[in-house]
Amino acid sequence: MEIKVLKNILGANEQIARKNRELLEKNGVFAVNIMASPGAGKTSLVLQTIAAVKGKVKVGVIEGDIASKIDAETVGKAGVPVVQINTGGECHLDANMIQNALANLPLKDIDLLLIENVGNLVCPAEFNLGEHKKVLVASVPEGDDKPYKYPAMFTAADAVVLNKTDLLPYVKFNLEAFTKAVNGINARAGVFPLSCTTGEGVPAWTKWLQKQMRPASSPRRG
Amino acid sequence: MEIKVLKNILGANEQIARKNRELLEKNGVFAVNIMASPGAGKTSLVLQTIAAVKGKVKVGVIEGDIASKIDAETVGKAGVPVVQINTGGECHLDANMIQNALANLPLKDIDLLLIENVGNLVCPAEFNLGEHKKVLVASVPEGDDKPYKYPAMFTAADAVVLNKTDLLPYVKFNLEAFTKAVNGINARAGVFPLSCTTGEGVPAWTKWLQKQMRPASSPRRG
Repeated sequence: MEIKVLKNILGANEQIARKNRELLEKNGVFAVNIMASPGAGKTSLVLQTIAAVKGKVKVGVIEGDIASKIDAETVGKAGVPVVQINTGGECHLDANMIQNALANLPLKDIDLLLIENVGNLVCPAEFNLGEHKKVLVASVPEGDDKPYKYPAMFTAADAVVLNKTDLLPYVKFNLEAFTKAVNGINARAGVFPLSCTTGEGVPAWTKWLQKQMRPASSPRRG
Repeated sequence: MEIKVLKNILGANEQIARKNRELLEKNGVFAVNIMASPGAGKTSLVLQTIAAVKGKVKVGVIEGDIASKIDAETVGKAGVPVVQINTGGECHLDANMIQNALANLPLKDIDLLLIENVGNLVCPAEFNLGEHKKVLVASVPEGDDKPYKYPAMFTAADAVVLNKTDLLPYVKFNLEAFTKAVNGINARAGVFPLSCTTGEGVPAWTKWLQKQMRPASSPRRG
């Protein structure tokens, strides 16, 4: 019986996710679901991405947090439309929350929608939001063993950003071992080492991102 | 109806947690539930704690991870009894998992049981395990705004360890603001800044921990 309830919840989420995707496609919006541990640098990556594509790509942002509007206020200063979702305890964003957020964004004026999920390396992997790509942000201080410990999230990702490479001299982290672990779990996800503090490595990430967006004028793929 | 199911789950968890607590008390074991984001340094804190109390306190460890036995292997090298729980996807430890683990530990030979929860700053807060104290491990690279974003976890904690203080010179982190945020949410939880890499600050943490254990010979409090 418990399993039945869970099936219904996921079924409903999938249905709403599909509607979100249709609405995004209709408005020519490419959406990215950004997932990570707390403090890995999701908001910093959003800010770096906005700065890197400025003048070329019109960005909109959905900020997901259990509580507070700290991130939306930070992102709002970058001059892009932003909506803050407070999940009120929920450990992940779901498609219904995104449906509500989309209704509050000027979709016609957005090419790229960055959705910052709740900081959690487990639960968000299970909930599609209607996004085109899922991106996992790992960070150097978290350690190079995370792909083994959180395999569902690393399996779900279309790309893995490794943030805080500026801290590599100060912590034990084997970049080769990390990349090998990611590739072993998920052969399709590229790894993008970068530092949102120094900006190093950001161009490779935004180049990949814009390449994903290219089929936008023609039919899009998931 | 969904809410009813959830109530039943939590009810069952509470019942098993109480049984775990009784079993721990009966065997004179003081149990600590260590919760944190992925990569905050839970295992490092376990290792530092084992080293600091060596010869004075007999330690046992339960390692909780979604997958892998990396942490149990690491801790096992420290020469203490250890059980690895693989939750197989579950985002938190629950009392039932601990009940099974306790059956596989030499409780008579353990004074202090360190339970390392799944790396997750949201879900573990909701599940009592039968532990005497809950400890949250935050870390400097995660940023000083985490208490505002993950209030349930910071509210549940009896103590907050702030790990990786050796990285303070390299990242933006306001220790005073962090401590103030913790105190604002949870007046009873002390903050213990320390570095598991350098060992700085560890004695204050283990002193607090051993003080909590003292009523062990007399009736224990929760």
